[in-house]
Amino acid sequence: MSDPILLTPGPLTTSEQTRLAMLRDWGSWDSAFHAITASVCADIAAIAHGEGSHACVPMQGSGTFAVEATLGSLIAREGKALVLDNGAYAQRALRILEVLGRPAEALRFAEDQPVDAERLDAALDADPAITHVVLVHCETGTGILNPLEPIAATVAMRGRRLIVDAMSSFGALPIDLRATPIEALVAASGKCLEGVPGMGFVLARRESLAAAAGRSHSLALDLHDQWAYLERTAQWRYTPPTHVVAALQAAIAQHRTEGGVAARGARYAANCHALVTGMRALGFRPLLPDALQSPIIVTFHAPTHPAWHFGTFYRAMRDRGFVLYPGKLTKIETFRVGCIGAIDTAAITMMLRAVAASLTVMGVPDGSSEPA
Amino acid sequence: MSDPILLTPGPLTTSEQTRLAMLRDWGSWDSAFHAITASVCADIAAIAHGEGSHACVPMQGSGTFAVEATLGSLIAREGKALVLDNGAYAQRALRILEVLGRPAEALRFAEDQPVDAERLDAALDADPAITHVVLVHCETGTGILNPLEPIAATVAMRGRRLIVDAMSSFGALPIDLRATPIEALVAASGKCLEGVPGMGFVLARRESLAAAAGRSHSLALDLHDQWAYLERTAQWRYTPPTHVVAALQAAIAQHRTEGGVAARGARYAANCHALVTGMRALGFRPLLPDALQSPIIVTFHAPTHPAWHFGTFYRAMRDRGFVLYPGKLTKIETFRVGCIGAIDTAAITMMLRAVAASLTVMGVPDGSSEPA
Repeated sequence: MSDPILLTPGPLTTSEQTRLAMLRDWGSWDSAFHAITASVCADIAAIAHGEGSHACVPMQGSGTFAVEATLGSLIAREGKALVLDNGAYAQRALRILEVLGRPAEALRFAEDQPVDAERLDAALDADPAITHVVLVHCETGTGILNPLEPIAATVAMRGRRLIVDAMSSFGALPIDLRATPIEALVAASGKCLEGVPGMGFVLARRESLAAAAGRSHSLALDLHDQWAYLERTAQWRYTPPTHVVAALQAAIAQHRTEGGVAARGARYAANCHALVTGMRALGFRPLLPDALQSPIIVTFHAPTHPAWHFGTFYRAMRDRGFVLYPGKLTKIETFRVGCIGAIDTAAITMMLRAVAASLTVMGVPDGSSEPA
Repeated sequence: MSDPILLTPGPLTTSEQTRLAMLRDWGSWDSAFHAITASVCADIAAIAHGEGSHACVPMQGSGTFAVEATLGSLIAREGKALVLDNGAYAQRALRILEVLGRPAEALRFAEDQPVDAERLDAALDADPAITHVVLVHCETGTGILNPLEPIAATVAMRGRRLIVDAMSSFGALPIDLRATPIEALVAASGKCLEGVPGMGFVLARRESLAAAAGRSHSLALDLHDQWAYLERTAQWRYTPPTHVVAALQAAIAQHRTEGGVAARGARYAANCHALVTGMRALGFRPLLPDALQSPIIVTFHAPTHPAWHFGTFYRAMRDRGFVLYPGKLTKIETFRVGCIGAIDTAAITMMLRAVAASLTVMGVPDGSSEPA
């Protein structure tokens, strides 16, 4: 029996080559491992064209750890953040800021609407106390893609600083730090770079990192200290997840071989197109119109047929070799299917057959749902 | 060319069986992965006989992340910690408490002396404001073993609570939570359980966890939230390092097969004995007398011969297949050799030959050093 395919937006299905990179042990004080860290950091900076301006700071833990490290280190204690909120991950950033005691406000949008540069402009005009804007590039809660460039231009024009949660876009959607004014960008190993989970990373302007000394609420999550120590010693400050870092190096090499961001994004877009087309043919309705849909993860309305039950569907799909995600919306019943990972449209085709078979065993005629 | 043997106290040399467990991907929302988390947590609690009293809470990141989560979550903001300080890891705990703004004091001892229950008793008698005592069980900075049971008895008798950093003792030195009053004990995957690095864990009294709601300085490092979410959902709160967790499960199974804590400790003690005996025969002086030496890591004085240079020695040993650690003392030049990991005395014997050969190529006649 082969392993299931993970149609979840991290952890996701990795290539065998990436997993094989974990078969060696590395001493974290050894120069061979320093070279791995250095190559991973240089490659990450290059992927976003940030070599000249931004330093890559790796951080142990999940992506949320790196987000918290960034917010707690780059926003001054007397600063104020405005979070553009159209989903679960923006709300998590707000929650972090609340726990940290950093002044923060939300600019709220509907979950099925992208955040909007004009409303942001008005909000920044109205509140000169705001120092930083926080944007979730691709909101994994729904799969909606937010307009990075217009937001970044607005933030820059108003003289504020932009922090981007690029967790589920980095490596698959183009981000150009030369052309787009971004203070810091956060992502993680186990997303579109197709590594295994266990570390995040931050691309932050060097002068912002330098200015962040002594500001963090946490020792472990102090981004300035992590950066300064790495600069000085070529080492992580505390024990790194050595095998995860080695796997990320292997994954980044495959990202390059595939053709970088453009090729990775094109493969995901093909996966997403096959998924949405096939699911529509089975009667399912995506939450978002195609124009707002990112190629990362798709939210579908749950069928309204009385025999539908997500847990049963999940297990039926699992039995057929596919792992899905539940929805993350509060008011509408949905489920989510990831398009990312070391998979192509052949996997999507098999998955669609499994969906049809699962509906049949559940006695659900099709995926149709009544609009609420 | 085979991989080097890591004589470092985490990351360390793991078994092939442990690394092979990382060849599969796991969905973090899938019940198959929930079962891995549950078995790892149950086994960790059982290793310290804490099944009845303590919950095991895993935490993403290095061991320091788990230490910070514990200190920030279990010590009330109006509490006060007394840290028993005879080395680098106690000083790290103090630094964490300082960053967190928790009132804390150090009770200092010499780096080559174990902490002392009588002085602790007097300190607790003198300062009723102290609510928690922090002890590093085995101080990895030197390799000294601190007297857990007398310290725990003193803390309990004075009605205070004990937090133990058992990072480099857990799984190899006996800790019995039924007999020893401990509020919380912290360790990590990549130490004596011989997993790969990437997660820590905390064994904490259930009632202490329950009382810790809303206390943490951090969202990511909130031990209460992590525990409550795991209890409610069987899942980690944020993306777990799935491959690291799977490797830890495999490593714990091997720990059991080997014969548990007693057998693991006996193997390390044999490694340590062979190391110290062999290094003494080459003229080296251990920092600590045998009675204070833990079987985890040994600090040796650097030879005083003018041709000695640690960097050269490190590379000569690395070329011969062994990775060592620099010293962590501020005043005396030392280096450290770990006794832990998936190695036995055969590896130590080979290592001793490599030490002799490395001294020869450096032109250092032997390992002797003048007492300072």
